[in-house]
Amino acid sequence: MELLLGLGLGLGRAGGLRAGERSSSALEELATEQEAEESHRQDSVSLLTFILLLTLTILTIWLFKHRRVRFLHETGLAMIYGLIVGVILRYGTPSTSGHDKPFSCSQENRLFTTLLINVSGKFFEYTLKGEISPGKIHNVEQNDMLRKVTFDPEVFFNILLPPIIFHAGYSLKKRHFFRNLGSILAYAFLGTAVSCFIIGNLMYGVVKLMKLVGQLSDKFYYTDCLLFGAIISATDPVTVLAIFNELHADVDLYALLFGESVLNDAVAIVLSSSIVAYQPTGENTHAFDAAAFFKSVGVFLGIFSGSFMMGAVTGVVTALVTKFTKLHCFPLLETALFFLMSWSTFLLAEACGFTGVVAVLFCGITQAHYTYNNLSVESRSRTKQLFEVLHFLAENFIFSYMGLALFTFQKHIFSPIFIIGAFIAIFLGRAAHIYPLSFLLNLGRRHKISWNFQHMMMFAGLRGAMAFALAIRDTATYSHQMMFSTTLLIVFFTVWVVGGGTTPMLSWLNIRVGVDPDQDPPPSNDSFQVLQGDGPDSERRNRTKQESAWLFRLWYSFDHNYLKPILTHSGPPLTTTLPSWCGLIARCLTSPQVYDNQEQLREEDSDFILNDGDLAVTYGDTTITANGSSGSHTVTTSLDGRRTKSSSEEALEHDLGTGDHEVTSRGTRLVFPLEDNA
Amino acid sequence: MELLLGLGLGLGRAGGLRAGERSSSALEELATEQEAEESHRQDSVSLLTFILLLTLTILTIWLFKHRRVRFLHETGLAMIYGLIVGVILRYGTPSTSGHDKPFSCSQENRLFTTLLINVSGKFFEYTLKGEISPGKIHNVEQNDMLRKVTFDPEVFFNILLPPIIFHAGYSLKKRHFFRNLGSILAYAFLGTAVSCFIIGNLMYGVVKLMKLVGQLSDKFYYTDCLLFGAIISATDPVTVLAIFNELHADVDLYALLFGESVLNDAVAIVLSSSIVAYQPTGENTHAFDAAAFFKSVGVFLGIFSGSFMMGAVTGVVTALVTKFTKLHCFPLLETALFFLMSWSTFLLAEACGFTGVVAVLFCGITQAHYTYNNLSVESRSRTKQLFEVLHFLAENFIFSYMGLALFTFQKHIFSPIFIIGAFIAIFLGRAAHIYPLSFLLNLGRRHKISWNFQHMMMFAGLRGAMAFALAIRDTATYSHQMMFSTTLLIVFFTVWVVGGGTTPMLSWLNIRVGVDPDQDPPPSNDSFQVLQGDGPDSERRNRTKQESAWLFRLWYSFDHNYLKPILTHSGPPLTTTLPSWCGLIARCLTSPQVYDNQEQLREEDSDFILNDGDLAVTYGDTTITANGSSGSHTVTTSLDGRRTKSSSEEALEHDLGTGDHEVTSRGTRLVFPLEDNA
Repeated sequence: MELLLGLGLGLGRAGGLRAGERSSSALEELATEQEAEESHRQDSVSLLTFILLLTLTILTIWLFKHRRVRFLHETGLAMIYGLIVGVILRYGTPSTSGHDKPFSCSQENRLFTTLLINVSGKFFEYTLKGEISPGKIHNVEQNDMLRKVTFDPEVFFNILLPPIIFHAGYSLKKRHFFRNLGSILAYAFLGTAVSCFIIGNLMYGVVKLMKLVGQLSDKFYYTDCLLFGAIISATDPVTVLAIFNELHADVDLYALLFGESVLNDAVAIVLSSSIVAYQPTGENTHAFDAAAFFKSVGVFLGIFSGSFMMGAVTGVVTALVTKFTKLHCFPLLETALFFLMSWSTFLLAEACGFTGVVAVLFCGITQAHYTYNNLSVESRSRTKQLFEVLHFLAENFIFSYMGLALFTFQKHIFSPIFIIGAFIAIFLGRAAHIYPLSFLLNLGRRHKISWNFQHMMMFAGLRGAMAFALAIRDTATYSHQMMFSTTLLIVFFTVWVVGGGTTPMLSWLNIRVGVDPDQDPPPSNDSFQVLQGDGPDSERRNRTKQESAWLFRLWYSFDHNYLKPILTHSGPPLTTTLPSWCGLIARCLTSPQVYDNQEQLREEDSDFILNDGDLAVTYGDTTITANGSSGSHTVTTSLDGRRTKSSSEEALEHDLGTGDHEVTSRGTRLVFPLEDNA
Repeated sequence: MELLLGLGLGLGRAGGLRAGERSSSALEELATEQEAEESHRQDSVSLLTFILLLTLTILTIWLFKHRRVRFLHETGLAMIYGLIVGVILRYGTPSTSGHDKPFSCSQENRLFTTLLINVSGKFFEYTLKGEISPGKIHNVEQNDMLRKVTFDPEVFFNILLPPIIFHAGYSLKKRHFFRNLGSILAYAFLGTAVSCFIIGNLMYGVVKLMKLVGQLSDKFYYTDCLLFGAIISATDPVTVLAIFNELHADVDLYALLFGESVLNDAVAIVLSSSIVAYQPTGENTHAFDAAAFFKSVGVFLGIFSGSFMMGAVTGVVTALVTKFTKLHCFPLLETALFFLMSWSTFLLAEACGFTGVVAVLFCGITQAHYTYNNLSVESRSRTKQLFEVLHFLAENFIFSYMGLALFTFQKHIFSPIFIIGAFIAIFLGRAAHIYPLSFLLNLGRRHKISWNFQHMMMFAGLRGAMAFALAIRDTATYSHQMMFSTTLLIVFFTVWVVGGGTTPMLSWLNIRVGVDPDQDPPPSNDSFQVLQGDGPDSERRNRTKQESAWLFRLWYSFDHNYLKPILTHSGPPLTTTLPSWCGLIARCLTSPQVYDNQEQLREEDSDFILNDGDLAVTYGDTTITANGSSGSHTVTTSLDGRRTKSSSEEALEHDLGTGDHEVTSRGTRLVFPLEDNA
């Protein structure tokens, strides 16, 4: 029944439509019927509880936003309400066991997924729900209400996480994300791996210690410790990011944090899958085995790249469909198609044995990068709003469920040593990847990641929905139960304490706030402010600018010259970028609008001027720097040799920046539209 | 597994996270694990099939709309694609039975909802799925893929129908709906009851005939026939209404058809529940029993009024919450709250034993009538668009499932006599309520329902999603299987043939199209057109105008004077409508905006003019008729005694018409804003 509940509807027969069964042994069936009805009613009640919780959360958030209270985020609030309801359910409801006492039946060796039970001549069909460890059989008979509010953990992966993750991918702030792509990838991949490994090893030490002092009552393997490392390495700084968004904090820091958290969720999922896949052959199943290790690495690479491909492919298909049909005349159809295609990514990945959630993330990014440009104005807002609502509901649902789970989950194992050890381990694990990695990245970055930024990233290592979902996925054994309880406490602590301390931390670290995301560095000092005192802004400003690795620049010019023109209505016409022998294909693939855009641009040639601020961004390290005279947008582009050479780089900056501006590079001439912040 | 599939996600472990179970008897568990994974994969594939079907439908609809093809509606198209896939699944996939052969186990008298099976020392939990009639046990072992694409029928009632029905309620064209409320209620309640009874009796005759010629191989009771009558009385002219909408056909006819179809869905659900509830006591369980009959009537009234109350109450609560908080500053929160509250209606009704779908309908109407006025502009479009997308997806999903079910449903019983009889019966059943009821209604209506309108209503008696959902809800017995197969054929026929014939029918019956819904009759002939030939328009125009029964007028003034001011920001201030001793409460409940509106209205007093077209609407049967001089909107309201008297009636018309116009009646003076079609 948890499953039904999890799916939000508790299937059953409330209206009663069982006419056909009336004919014989009516009384007996009536009892079954009533039981099913009762169960359906209870499901509805439990789900209603969650909906009321969410409603309450929404109203309180409104009150908080209204009064500008920032120390508690909506997710933290949802957890608190969940906790309260959990306490009430736990201690306030009578234990109604016995009424549904299960019937035991022995069977020989084989396990079936479907059972037929013959009850006095009538056949009933049963389906397999899962194994119960022998010690836990009495649990089945426990408090009905507590069972009702317990979900099948797969609900999180199949219903609640996909919209959250898709929304994250779909709303990545593109310019700043791509600018910092190298660093983000490093933090997400290397960082998560380092963090996982360090936490895993530290926890193995803790487990050894527990065994020494006799606090460990069951098995706890090294792979379990590594799994814990993977689970707890999924950061989710939703609280911090919400405050960043509200205060318009530094956009590069935002991009680093958001990008890292989005990608490291994907890495953590796949990492935990590959750790589970690590199964040494032979007798000693928990010793190191090179073959099994490489198999795990292979699983990691396979699942990750497969999921990535799935997501990218469905995104590309959606882009092509929206480009070559005129669906944009019918926003409803367009939105429905967009939704279905994005959902099919998930199913496709799951059907192929990859990870749906990861595929959905990359699908979201692809949709935002290509498909979004093809959508009608109405569909853009529709899709954004649709996924925003789904994301909001799903996220708050998970967090309120977490609050509830602290009291209603029936297999908690709280071990003080393990919990303290875990807190220390996650602190060390995060420190051990943020600082060294930032140091290494700063060697290559033109705009260094400042110490204050590193401290903020260290601080913003909150754990949230993903860690919880990974931890609750398997709570069958002693070690997993202990891991789950500990994860829950870590999420609570980080969301409440760390999340609540974000605003003071921002001002303490002198992170600038009030930044206009479309324009940096700002033309004058009055467009932004530092919370307390105004530190050496100009210095930091210069240090945190974009990095463009050669690999990325290569990808960018490919994307800009070929992918964008093929998949969207923007970019240069393929007839100019493709070799001449591809003429026919190029003409077919290039959308007529591109020529229109180009025509338009040519006519307005004389008006093109460049914003000084933008010049400073693009040539932060060259001789051409803006003199900072605010409000003057009159530096005309007298295209000298230096500039013409770096035209693709300039186009990069602009194209990433604002989707509305069409930047076209034809041959050696570069055309810039007027910046709109005049 | 059908259930899982139905919920769209097929829960399982694709990534594999079952570390805890590795420890012992690994091989055996690996097999179970793999089976679960395989099952999850198959679920994903089946769901993917549906999504691809819907995607294909969307693209084809686009093509049809693009080329202005009107003979086939999107739902008809979805069915065709469903049919094709059904054929492929049925005849194209190998029958993979045996691999999941169920295990049988005898048990004494009592039935359990949970089973524990001991398989060589390990315990597995199974849950009850339902009874299988003894003759059908071999079905369980049939084609896996066919089983995969078969849903739990409750999915329709708990997931797919609620958004469809809510959307119907939320998008009722208010003015024309309320104008024709009396007739709509008569068609929906009396009409459906008459139709159900007539069809039921005719079908009983058909069944008797079948028994006579030896075509009936199992029991078929009178109550089964009545149930069929109830199921098939739920009309769903979605195809016709879509064409009406596109061609802007006569708004009153649209209101009659749409209102009838929306309400009669609710009536049909409750009616079928009460027929099932009819269980005579004593030996002869299928003879007439007065006590059981009155119990059924009681059940009908109880469920209907209970569901109505639930819907209205949650709607009112939402209205109050959105009125007294300033949630409209945060459209995301507002939309989420709106969605959650509307969903909670469904759960609340189900939890209390009422019918969720019916509650959702009335909740939708209440939300549209009150809450909608309190929402921010962004939330209005967000909520409309959200439910529009959900409705679109759910509807096309159901119709494509219908197409699929014709071939994949494994218990079809097609009986030619029954099918022909059913077609004749539904024709007679509809004729027997449309024409007599229209005659009776015309006695009371000021604006008669013309013969052509009656013919169109007769013609538009399509069957759709609701009839299908009711029929598939219980297919356990012979009679129900036959009813299901017949319903499916009736839906196909009506959607394709009748739906496709709508445009010719409209022109044949001279129904006017190209009508501006906000303004009727139009000021001049050039703003609308009749498809072929221009019949006696003015006559028909006068005949089809509003009726306002005294009961409805009573309700209206109560709603306008008390409910609207309490629940929304519009209407007259309560301080003027409530008796003076309620002063304090009135002041608390009246929103400050009402005074603002009023202030504004008073200042503009001198400008208020009435549109001649509107006068003609309101006083269609009085001496004040417009002279039809198009474009002249200069007939000023010199309020004479006659008009002042009927002020609430005028306010009614206007208020229902356009939500933007605030109409306030203070004492005996009436203030009209300028019509916006000037």
